[in-house]
Amino acid sequence: MSKPSVAILGLGIMGSGMARRLLSANFPLAVYNRNREKSLPLAADGAFVADTPREAASRAQIILSMVADDTASRSVWLGETGALAGASPGSILIESSTLTVGWIQELAAKAAERGCRFLDAPVTGSKPQAASGELLFLVGGTADVIDATRPVFSVLSRDVIHMGPVGSGALMKLVNNFMCGVQAASFAEGLSLIDAAGLDRAKAIAILTGGAPGSGIVKRVAERVAAEDFTPVFALRWMAKDLGYALDGASGRGVSLPIASAALAMFRRAIAEGLGDEDFSAVTKSPAG
Amino acid sequence: MSKPSVAILGLGIMGSGMARRLLSANFPLAVYNRNREKSLPLAADGAFVADTPREAASRAQIILSMVADDTASRSVWLGETGALAGASPGSILIESSTLTVGWIQELAAKAAERGCRFLDAPVTGSKPQAASGELLFLVGGTADVIDATRPVFSVLSRDVIHMGPVGSGALMKLVNNFMCGVQAASFAEGLSLIDAAGLDRAKAIAILTGGAPGSGIVKRVAERVAAEDFTPVFALRWMAKDLGYALDGASGRGVSLPIASAALAMFRRAIAEGLGDEDFSAVTKSPAG
Repeated sequence: MSKPSVAILGLGIMGSGMARRLLSANFPLAVYNRNREKSLPLAADGAFVADTPREAASRAQIILSMVADDTASRSVWLGETGALAGASPGSILIESSTLTVGWIQELAAKAAERGCRFLDAPVTGSKPQAASGELLFLVGGTADVIDATRPVFSVLSRDVIHMGPVGSGALMKLVNNFMCGVQAASFAEGLSLIDAAGLDRAKAIAILTGGAPGSGIVKRVAERVAAEDFTPVFALRWMAKDLGYALDGASGRGVSLPIASAALAMFRRAIAEGLGDEDFSAVTKSPAG
Repeated sequence: MSKPSVAILGLGIMGSGMARRLLSANFPLAVYNRNREKSLPLAADGAFVADTPREAASRAQIILSMVADDTASRSVWLGETGALAGASPGSILIESSTLTVGWIQELAAKAAERGCRFLDAPVTGSKPQAASGELLFLVGGTADVIDATRPVFSVLSRDVIHMGPVGSGALMKLVNNFMCGVQAASFAEGLSLIDAAGLDRAKAIAILTGGAPGSGIVKRVAERVAAEDFTPVFALRWMAKDLGYALDGASGRGVSLPIASAALAMFRRAIAEGLGDEDFSAVTKSPAG
């Protein structure tokens, strides 16, 4: 079976890792990035570097976007030079960014108008999982479209979970991320109290990470705090964005998320203090109280 | 070296487990419980059943309290029939309940007036760890008193962590527990949104517990939700109490904990809905929104 041609739109940490995996597996690949510089190493390995999302899309049967937020996603898909204008009827559009459910549903409708198939397929996992093809895709859409995308998913992921109709993958990702944001911000609150009481931070952190609240996300934040290294892998402003998107999705369904709201307020304060471009674990540098 | 005599005040799940461990290791043991019924199985195994905390304390070199809250602690230690009145000068008083730092400091002062030594030594771990002697003690006090208590700690615990002066153990425990409460309540928020969006609960729970937010406490709540079993091991009203005590300790130090406050509001609403005596994981039954 010949490999489907693929376009990747957005070459941040995640998109680049995916593109490299696909090149290694000999998929015909076109790439687009707003800043063209990031495309060049992939060009050296055989990727076609497109000047516009439209051009990338016109060369691909499967078009995957991996960008920062709704605004960036609108800009790669829509307009004269956008990917929708270049996509052939019958091609599969995949939005793997973490976006609002509202925009996902709007985009799916536009894809259908053009005769394209659509999946929302955000991922869990970070840089190492993108590089090693061990992402977890949380997918909204229909089973036949997922099956048609398997050749690509199998190179990029350890598993693909079909959550339900279009928008279900996006919503699941937002729940996962708002819980991560809450846990990180709650750990920051804990550290504030530990510091205010004059307790030994290292002992306290070992107890919290080794005990019942010691999730993967809490451990990750704790490692950054211990190393005093807030170089961004997932920037604080993106965590704030995800909390905001989750709240948006919840309010549209009449669900209130008071804890996530409180966490968002902490991240927003950290952004106001100039920490938005640091790793989200820098929320621990923004003292409570 | 002969074993020190011990008194255990409070024979709930934790106190009973500790008492049984000490009996198995042949410590001379006196026990007191407000409801005398709970003492009887221990009497059959050789414990002296005291009629008052004072009587239990008068027979012991090391007196350990393990009760529900500040009110219960005041009632076992203070007054005519309280343990302080029975404690010999030089004996060691240990408060292992999860209490406010303010009351712990007041109690430590009263112990000093009486010529007794004092530790606040709350534990992490639950019924199985109490029964198997694998609790973790988080201790506030001085190193010499901890050393004098080692024979008892070594039978009850896998480790003893000296957090600092009196009150430090209590504060550390409150930070641990408020983070647990926040994570449980945040998981409840997540489930509300998952339900409102019509996603498959089992798939969603597997993703959350298997991923970055999947702490021990989140997994424990998820198991109860999956089994629809909210038989209390740690009652919801005790989680609310711990969140309230943490907020009390924080406000006394000028630290605000907005996320813990939002979680407390969720637990309080669950109590208002009649869920206070169920397991704290029943917070997931109190819909957000």
